[in-house]
Parts: sequence; C-alpha cells; structure tokens
Amino acid sequence: MIKVIAFDADDTLWVNEPFFREAEEKFASLMEDFMPRHSSIKELYLTEIENLGLYGYGIKGFMLSMIQTALRISDHKINAKAIDRILAIGYEMMQKPVEILPGVEEVLEELKQDYRLVMATKGDLVDQEKKLKKSGLDHYFHHIEIMSEKKEADFAKLIRHLDVAPAEFLMMGNSLKSDVLPVLELGGHAIHIPYHITWGHEMIAHEVEHAKFRQAEHISEVLQLIKGM
Amino acid sequence: MIKVIAFDADDTLWVNEPFFREAEEKFASLMEDFMPRHSSIKELYLTEIENLGLYGYGIKGFMLSMIQTALRISDHKINAKAIDRILAIGYEMMQKPVEILPGVEEVLEELKQDYRLVMATKGDLVDQEKKLKKSGLDHYFHHIEIMSEKKEADFAKLIRHLDVAPAEFLMMGNSLKSDVLPVLELGGHAIHIPYHITWGHEMIAHEVEHAKFRQAEHISEVLQLIKGM
Repeated sequence: MIKVIAFDADDTLWVNEPFFREAEEKFASLMEDFMPRHSSIKELYLTEIENLGLYGYGIKGFMLSMIQTALRISDHKINAKAIDRILAIGYEMMQKPVEILPGVEEVLEELKQDYRLVMATKGDLVDQEKKLKKSGLDHYFHHIEIMSEKKEADFAKLIRHLDVAPAEFLMMGNSLKSDVLPVLELGGHAIHIPYHITWGHEMIAHEVEHAKFRQAEHISEVLQLIKGM
Repeated sequence: MIKVIAFDADDTLWVNEPFFREAEEKFASLMEDFMPRHSSIKELYLTEIENLGLYGYGIKGFMLSMIQTALRISDHKINAKAIDRILAIGYEMMQKPVEILPGVEEVLEELKQDYRLVMATKGDLVDQEKKLKKSGLDHYFHHIEIMSEKKEADFAKLIRHLDVAPAEFLMMGNSLKSDVLPVLELGGHAIHIPYHITWGHEMIAHEVEHAKFRQAEHISEVLQLIKGM
C-alpha cells in the first residue's frame, strides 16, 4: 500500500540540533558580561521565533538573530569584536562535516529496494543542499524537497507532486509537530523516530495515537514497523 | 516545438536589483566616517562574492555580508547602533511590496494558453516564495523552481524533472550568464530580456549569437519572437 517513504533530514538522517545548542552556548559565553547564560539563551530563542516568518529556518537566520539579540541585551554596548565572533560561530556551523546517524544507511539501502525514497526537509536551500552533498546519501533519493514550512498544505503539495495518494505516503522524522501530525491529518502514514535533543519550537505537549502512526525508538526499528502497517 | 517556457523572476517578472542598490547606498552612508562611498560599496561587493558559496543568493546573506564588511572597513570601530541600522536595512528589503514589471501579466496571460509556464529563479527559498505570493502571479505557473544556482547541471535537472527535451524548453530572463548561456549549452532556447540594472556578478563581457537565442528589448516583444523560433 505504501509506495513513497519520505525522510526528514535534520536529526533524522544526520546530526543537526546539537550544533545549534553548541552555538547557543558559545553565544551565551559572549553575553556573560550582560546577562546570565540561561537568560541570554532564552532571549535568543524569543528572537528566533519572532523572526521565523521573515527569515525561515537555517543558519543565516540564526546568525542574524544572534546579532540582533546581542545588540538588544547589551543595550547596544556590545563591541564589534563580539559581533565578529558571532559571525564566526555561524561560519563554523556551516562548515561542520555531516555526521550521519547510526543505522541510517542500512535502512535506506533496504527500503530503496521496495519504495520510492524522498528526502523532505525544512530549512535553508543552500544549507540543506550542501549537507545532502556532504552526506553522500543523495543517490538513495528519487526526489529532494526542501520546504520553507512543513504544514499540512506543504505536504499536500508534495504528495500531489509525487503523484501518489496520501495513503500511499509514509513520512518519518524526529518532529511530531512537523513530520507526523500534518501527514496523519492528510491521511498519510507517519513514524516518529525521536532524537535526544528537540528544538523548543518543534515540541508538542500531547501524545499521538492514530491507526496510521507508529512510534520507533530508533531508526533500525522502522523496517519491522513498516511491515506491520 | 517549444512546450515549456520558464521565466526568471528577479528583474524579469518583478523589480529586485534596484532594492539592493538602494540598500548599498544606505550602507555606504553609514560607512562614510570610515571610507568614501564608492569604496565601501566595492568592499561590500567583494564580501558578497566571497560569501556566495557559503550563503547563496538572497537578503539574509546580503545582511550578513554588510555586517562583515562594516566590521572590516571600520577596523572594528563601528558601533552597535550602526549594526542595528544594517539589520533594519535588511528588514526593509524583506518587507517591500512586490512591483511587477510592465507587460508581464499580459505576456503570462497570453502564453499560458499554449505553453506550460514555469518560474525558475535563483535565491533564498523564503524570500522568493514570499515574493511570488505577494505578486499574485503564482496561478500562472505549472511549476516553481527555486534554485541555489543556475548552472548547466541545475537546468539539466529542471528540464529532466519537467519531462521535456531541452529543445522543447525556452528560458527567458535578464541575465545572459544565468538565464541564457547554460540553457543554450544544453540545447534549449533562450530569450534575453534586459533590465536597466544588472548586478556585477551576473554580467558577461561578450555578446551572444546562437540559432536558439533571441534578444528582446522588452518583455512585450517575446510573443512575436517566440512565433519566429
């Protein structure tokens, strides 16, 4: 019944969120003269959420939000060297090698025999294309979709584009909010593969129960879960 | 013979480059204490080109390049208020209304009767999606392709995706370098519709002569030119 399996990328195929957390810690260190660490990280988060509609997801928007937050919480007392340091934090993030998560390649290798595989990720076009290239995973995917949002309408467009019915589509990812709920809503299937760190903005407060939903503990379990779907 | 007509967006469908020039002028004003206007604009351009591989095209990368240039040319003497002002220049760019160029809607209206129309634009995903939505032109297009680059390989991928032969594909745009040459190279057709301002990075030094190439002075001429192709 399932014909297409789509994978989220960040924190599903490869490590992402820990790099943002590392960057936040470096940012907090730079801001310690002005504010305690946990407060500057909270201020940064608020700035990011406020800018999300304008900037979208990705490292460039994160860099701009760090700069904006630094100006605000230092009451414009931050010096130019610290701004330089913030730019450097972003450059470092962009140049990180891609760390593929354990079990991913085995699962892709197995599933590509029987399904059309798709990568469906939110984020910045340049960031995500670069990560995919560095990962060496691109040959597994029939189609790559880099989306500015992962809401119901965005998945509906993707599923139409792939020329399958929602019931023939399975999405896997680490975000219940972005990878699971909108797809179930459309009549598709979803598997949640949790990652040990989730960005606050991606968290939801309730549990998911649905006939077309499965909870994995690790990506290596999905082959078994798909058989039972 | 031609089945698909693809349009570049920035400075082909709507005004773009003048907003960057305006922003450069504002940036140069901020930098006047440190450097004459033409020099700071030149320094900014060099920073942009240097960052292009890392940031790609779009306003967020431009904002980051302005900040980096300001730090460098002021020898880190720039104050936090000026950095704030640079962020504001970027916000203003992002919030500009979309100005559709004269003749565009008439041409789209006419061509959509006989061809599949595509928008194929370089740039930032969020920026371009927002501009398309604001423009109200989205209903003309069968497919939207937001590309991180417009090189031969990128067009080859697009043409494959559209399931036509290169000889059935016509690209129109204001950049000889990005919209015309790579498409001709692949065996496609191209029409150059010049815009009165072209970003330095998009300029080429030679003229184009090719059986599948036409030069328009204005978009209103393309209906006539296509008939003769």
